Amino acid sequence: MSDALHSLTLDGLLEEHRRSHPDRIAAVFEHRVFTYPQLADRVIQLSNALSASGVGAGDRVLWMGQNTHVIFEALLACARIGAMFCPLNWRQTAGEMAFVIDDLEPRVVVWQQQEIGSVVLAAKAQAQWQSAQWIAFDAEGSGSYEDYLSHGAKLDPLAAEGRISDASLPCLLMYTAAFSGRPNGALLSQTAFLWQNLSLIDIQALSSQTVFLNSGPLFHIGTLMVSMATFHVGGTNVFIRRTDPEAIAQHIHNHRCTLAFLVGKTQHEIVEINRDGRYDLKCLRSPCLSPEWDAMVTPTSERSLFGFGQTEVCGPVVWQYYGWGQCLSRNGRTGTVAQVRVFDADDKELGPGEVGELAVRGPTVMSGYWRRPEINARRQRGGWHYTNDLGKREVDGSISFVGPKTQMIKSMAENIYPAEVEGCLRQHPAVADCGIIGVPDDKWVQSVKAIVQLKPDAQATAAELIEHCRANIASYKKPRHIEFVTNLPRTPSGMIDYAALDQRFGGGNYPGGMTRGA
Amino acid sequence: MSDALHSLTLDGLLEEHRRSHPDRIAAVFEHRVFTYPQLADRVIQLSNALSASGVGAGDRVLWMGQNTHVIFEALLACARIGAMFCPLNWRQTAGEMAFVIDDLEPRVVVWQQQEIGSVVLAAKAQAQWQSAQWIAFDAEGSGSYEDYLSHGAKLDPLAAEGRISDASLPCLLMYTAAFSGRPNGALLSQTAFLWQNLSLIDIQALSSQTVFLNSGPLFHIGTLMVSMATFHVGGTNVFIRRTDPEAIAQHIHNHRCTLAFLVGKTQHEIVEINRDGRYDLKCLRSPCLSPEWDAMVTPTSERSLFGFGQTEVCGPVVWQYYGWGQCLSRNGRTGTVAQVRVFDADDKELGPGEVGELAVRGPTVMSGYWRRPEINARRQRGGWHYTNDLGKREVDGSISFVGPKTQMIKSMAENIYPAEVEGCLRQHPAVADCGIIGVPDDKWVQSVKAIVQLKPDAQATAAELIEHCRANIASYKKPRHIEFVTNLPRTPSGMIDYAALDQRFGGGNYPGGMTRGA
Repeated sequence: MSDALHSLTLDGLLEEHRRSHPDRIAAVFEHRVFTYPQLADRVIQLSNALSASGVGAGDRVLWMGQNTHVIFEALLACARIGAMFCPLNWRQTAGEMAFVIDDLEPRVVVWQQQEIGSVVLAAKAQAQWQSAQWIAFDAEGSGSYEDYLSHGAKLDPLAAEGRISDASLPCLLMYTAAFSGRPNGALLSQTAFLWQNLSLIDIQALSSQTVFLNSGPLFHIGTLMVSMATFHVGGTNVFIRRTDPEAIAQHIHNHRCTLAFLVGKTQHEIVEINRDGRYDLKCLRSPCLSPEWDAMVTPTSERSLFGFGQTEVCGPVVWQYYGWGQCLSRNGRTGTVAQVRVFDADDKELGPGEVGELAVRGPTVMSGYWRRPEINARRQRGGWHYTNDLGKREVDGSISFVGPKTQMIKSMAENIYPAEVEGCLRQHPAVADCGIIGVPDDKWVQSVKAIVQLKPDAQATAAELIEHCRANIASYKKPRHIEFVTNLPRTPSGMIDYAALDQRFGGGNYPGGMTRGA
Repeated sequence: MSDALHSLTLDGLLEEHRRSHPDRIAAVFEHRVFTYPQLADRVIQLSNALSASGVGAGDRVLWMGQNTHVIFEALLACARIGAMFCPLNWRQTAGEMAFVIDDLEPRVVVWQQQEIGSVVLAAKAQAQWQSAQWIAFDAEGSGSYEDYLSHGAKLDPLAAEGRISDASLPCLLMYTAAFSGRPNGALLSQTAFLWQNLSLIDIQALSSQTVFLNSGPLFHIGTLMVSMATFHVGGTNVFIRRTDPEAIAQHIHNHRCTLAFLVGKTQHEIVEINRDGRYDLKCLRSPCLSPEWDAMVTPTSERSLFGFGQTEVCGPVVWQYYGWGQCLSRNGRTGTVAQVRVFDADDKELGPGEVGELAVRGPTVMSGYWRRPEINARRQRGGWHYTNDLGKREVDGSISFVGPKTQMIKSMAENIYPAEVEGCLRQHPAVADCGIIGVPDDKWVQSVKAIVQLKPDAQATAAELIEHCRANIASYKKPRHIEFVTNLPRTPSGMIDYAALDQRFGGGNYPGGMTRGA
């Protein structure tokens, strides 16, 4: 509903926080500290400055930088004026960044000179789109971001005109991983965030006392969704540029952070750094890890953020947290703001135990991909968002993710899921890791090929590994061919790079003419 | 948004629960136990039966009975077809019930013979509206509610036609207390409940493991909102007809209830009943009360449901639970799904510490009162719902409720709040209780009159009490007249009956031509 009386909007929340939390810290970045009233003022000024730059409804604003408070205030400012904010993956190459600039055609780009300035400038030079206004976040004086913001009018046009922003419009544009081909920008609305925020407030027990350390990259939904939920409930967001164990420990100590998502490696590094106890990390509530870590922080019973989801549905929609009782799946149960179905290739719903494509309906579903009408028509049909992921309902009603749909292999009428075959091969004592692909087969449509990396000094023949599979899983699932490699190719995030495997070892003929990716 | 892809609806939740919680008990009433798949089937059949009775979008279905599962399934069935369900206050007189029948003009009435049958039939005879189809819940065989439901088609028309219900339409109509004059039916949408559910799931830590004992009356929002939230998260609702300590203890024991809202009196009665420990109540998580109670249940740190709200905004919107930190008010802080403002008589926002009318904006605000266009226009304007209640923002951002607006007294330019004067008088050792009204005054618009009930055997003169006030609060607030009574008149819910005081002691001339009530 778009009437003001029944509206819930990000700008409405910010105006409420201005009054409800007059002294609460909203955002911290290095020496900059903003209370909620200050943040509210800045967001109004920034939205007015963007309007003065010609940014209107449907226009794009691009952030080319690391984690800072800018991401937060620019997202809120764009939401006010119906514009879309995109936080770029700053780890990309200049060429990848240039692709995003040309795909997005932003009217305003805010960029960071420090650390990534040369890549950004190379991308700017490479891009076809040369019509953006470029604002350097970390420049000094005239032309800087602070200068740009400070020239925005202080009057709140929404309040002055008795209007509200339209929460159903997309306010965020987030590019999702490109398994193959180009990445696609998922459009998320204010409404998507507002509902997901309430899920997260419950699952993570967030409150206005929460101080969330934004240490993961804000160009991924996993960190951004928790920032948004922390904002929603009037908590504090502390930003650090990148995942750095020393900075993390310092910031937890200095700002009394209560929440941060740290992978095991980072936790171990912090334990090492803090052996002398120079940082007091007792304020941090963290799942149990090791005796040393647990003694350093405040261990809590885990409220897991894991489950099944994707950027396209604003993060998880199936949560371990809701997997109460005798939950058979590792992925958990549908949360409180979505419906999930398992469909076969003809869009017919499947029963418990049957593997099909997972589909989602609910207010957190994206508005679509930016400028991808064909993919949108394919992925969103009949009132459901098709996730491109395979899964099943267990008999207890929980949901199991099986694998990406594009990795399904077809052997005549049989569906073969690489994850299952890989799991079997990894149980062999000589196998370090492996990847399964499907290769075209005149008789069987596809046949299964395993690319195997053996453990150092371990030995196994192809025949031995095939026999191992035959003995442990249905015979039609066993690999017909095995190739050995010294190192499996991996994506930047550490996942097996199936596109590279397909290319090198002859993968193809995947069902439905699918290729890896959307 | 009304598109299926982004929809969240009560029927959508029920269809998801059918799949996510195939074995979970949804509802229990006496010997009837329904799993989520069974409830989903029954709601489809009931909605089809109602459609066959001619109930369509905007039509009303009235429940004249105590707490049963019918309230739940009829509400869900009405939501599916865009109709409105009204659970009547069964404690009313036949005349009061007849008023509701005539105001509502229901197409279908489901009524309960047991205990209240004769009052219901008297109301039916008194009412002008004689066009309803009457269905006796507790009749046997043909014409009974079970018979009616079982004749509904089993096919789900929404699924068959690929439609969804419209969550923005009202699905519940709840009559609010009539301070004076007639009661008004507040219209609440599915959307209002869905957002409020998520607040409650967080605040009450509800999960699919929650077993909520519906022991309070479901014709009040306070109980119904928790039932709805328990349903939302896939928990179990256990219904008992009325608040009865023996039945409560039995049901907690038999159904392993984890949640129930019991006033102190009821808790003490249960302690007495259960001195022999015949009921195992350890499953119940309850705020601490007394050593005996605490030993009988599982005491928990309190997650208070108190705050400020009203039926018209689907229950509380300001919550003690969110009053983290140094919260000055007893009422707490705005929750996560509303905005609150304090306005003066010219609809200008007031600053901290200034008393004015509390106004609310957000998705939980009612769609309006049924058939009260003039009141709706007065109460809902400029994008805000005016609560008719006075309050203020404290300097820490929390919100204090001061009193009903209709009890404000005007002495020339000064606003006088009866609650403040009453609080002062109650501190006098001789005063048992008192009520403050405003009486017309040619010079001052109104002057303050106190109606005082003294403690047994206590004595005090009017002059003494006036002097006590003059010494403790601003002089213009002191009563000019005092009347003594043996017993103050009270409403059925135990509040001071100001309308009766006005009538008996000459109250009137209230600001803005307001009378007590809407």
